[in-house]
Amino acid sequence: METELIQKQTALVTGGAGFIGSHLVDRLLMSDFRVICVDNFILGRREHLAEAMQDPSFSLEEFDLLDLERLDQLFADEDIDIVFHLAANSDIREGTTSTDRDLNLTFLTTYNVLECMRRHELKKILFTSTPAIFGEHTEALHEESSARPESLYGASKLSAEAFIVAFSSLYGIQSWICRLSNIVGERSTHGIILDLLNKLDSNKKELEVLGDGTQTKPYMYVGEIVEALMFIFENSDERTNIFNIGPRDATTVAEIAEALLVAAGDGQKIVYSGGDRGWKGDVPLYRYRPSKLEALGWPKPMSSTEAVRVAIAKVLESR
Amino acid sequence: METELIQKQTALVTGGAGFIGSHLVDRLLMSDFRVICVDNFILGRREHLAEAMQDPSFSLEEFDLLDLERLDQLFADEDIDIVFHLAANSDIREGTTSTDRDLNLTFLTTYNVLECMRRHELKKILFTSTPAIFGEHTEALHEESSARPESLYGASKLSAEAFIVAFSSLYGIQSWICRLSNIVGERSTHGIILDLLNKLDSNKKELEVLGDGTQTKPYMYVGEIVEALMFIFENSDERTNIFNIGPRDATTVAEIAEALLVAAGDGQKIVYSGGDRGWKGDVPLYRYRPSKLEALGWPKPMSSTEAVRVAIAKVLESR
Repeated sequence: METELIQKQTALVTGGAGFIGSHLVDRLLMSDFRVICVDNFILGRREHLAEAMQDPSFSLEEFDLLDLERLDQLFADEDIDIVFHLAANSDIREGTTSTDRDLNLTFLTTYNVLECMRRHELKKILFTSTPAIFGEHTEALHEESSARPESLYGASKLSAEAFIVAFSSLYGIQSWICRLSNIVGERSTHGIILDLLNKLDSNKKELEVLGDGTQTKPYMYVGEIVEALMFIFENSDERTNIFNIGPRDATTVAEIAEALLVAAGDGQKIVYSGGDRGWKGDVPLYRYRPSKLEALGWPKPMSSTEAVRVAIAKVLESR
Repeated sequence: METELIQKQTALVTGGAGFIGSHLVDRLLMSDFRVICVDNFILGRREHLAEAMQDPSFSLEEFDLLDLERLDQLFADEDIDIVFHLAANSDIREGTTSTDRDLNLTFLTTYNVLECMRRHELKKILFTSTPAIFGEHTEALHEESSARPESLYGASKLSAEAFIVAFSSLYGIQSWICRLSNIVGERSTHGIILDLLNKLDSNKKELEVLGDGTQTKPYMYVGEIVEALMFIFENSDERTNIFNIGPRDATTVAEIAEALLVAAGDGQKIVYSGGDRGWKGDVPLYRYRPSKLEALGWPKPMSSTEAVRVAIAKVLESR
């Protein structure tokens, strides 16, 4: 038993109490990793870790990654093999009004993680990035599409990528940069499904939808994204591994609103606020061309529209 | 006379006491701008501004751009029309050992400038970026080449670009992002010509050159880069204007060392330290494909090798 424990790999998951982070924590524990979760609980929730807390291979550290000295101490104390760095301000809309929110929570947190990895000679990091780094494009996004972010969230994630690439090159760190499409499913802390469900609860007559309903994005179910992250980590072995992850199709906001009304509505009428985007900094339409991931033998995920349907069912089930 | 003064445009030049900055200050004064220079004098030098100090349209502010409140006050006090943001840690080599040097001096300074522009509704910024954002490439670099920085300097400049693009999009700021090739000429505060001249002074037998002499880069004379910046500012009018600036040819380090020996040597023998690059994080070879700038009607600059020859003569003349 003791030998077995010694052989376990140790993963640090930042943002591990968050939406995707907590699913990844569960998945890593299932794969026999020892898991240390760091979360500041701004967006993360303790109840997402209810299952993990039962596992002796799991431990939780509550602090903010902006606290460099505390993070440094953790790296000194623990023998970490890989960092899954998911912590970020995932609320893009909020980041447009508080201009230093993404700078701090999305970018500088990443810098601190990299700096501690350098100091303690850690050699592996998997980072979750975003199509928001690209800004508006007419063609489907591939890994080499030009990056022109239109939100501070996108700019912060692009900056984080830039520093990961440079640290990888300078200090012999291997990195996996995974740009996730929109993710939906249970435990989400924000996003369209949750927003609309809350609105359905509070208004029995109308369902107000931001924008004109035509915003179109590829959605992926959280259970599948966690599998994709593990697949990429296990099957791609370059110094820097960059992948766009998401389905090829996409779903409109109107389709999501209608599916939600069918699943959870009370006969509300959909009212669109108008305009081609939900808020300033929102990219109203994008598609993904995940050829690089497909070439690696990635099992095709469910379609975007199917992912939305599954996510709605799972979210309702978990309420 | 008073009316004339009122009509003058006011330019803020950050890093205005530096190598390129001070040449730009002189050029702007010549074009009848009122010029405010901010410099922390880490790399900048007061003597570079000797001529400018004689001009009543010039004023100097000595502080660090990391001091957000001080910068904010300057923006509140002055009616600035355009920011030429050149301040940065231009010593790439140094940035590899002090990991937060570029984060602070190259990136966070830019963030502070953008944040003050947003607060005070300034609408124009010209930013000097670098081919170091691209990392190693086999083909000549164009504006859409993929950006994979291998130094913290490159990562910081790429991050600065990302935030400029996002701020432009969110807050109606017009931006000119100019990625300058290697620049040479009088008033340079670092770089190969100065390094080698200092070595010639201190060792009368050997001239030690970092790397194996095959590193090959496009060089441009500082007088021409300042003209190119003005040309781009005046002739490109998109919301975000991104240009690679430099000649199509390139010069090897061996050629520069030999030209320096001829111009200023004392019979020293060149000794190469070996290895394909001067230091970790150095990109040993790149070329530029400035088609976008040429299409704008840019007058072709002198060749890289000619620029090096002119720069050596000018640097020696100014010693």
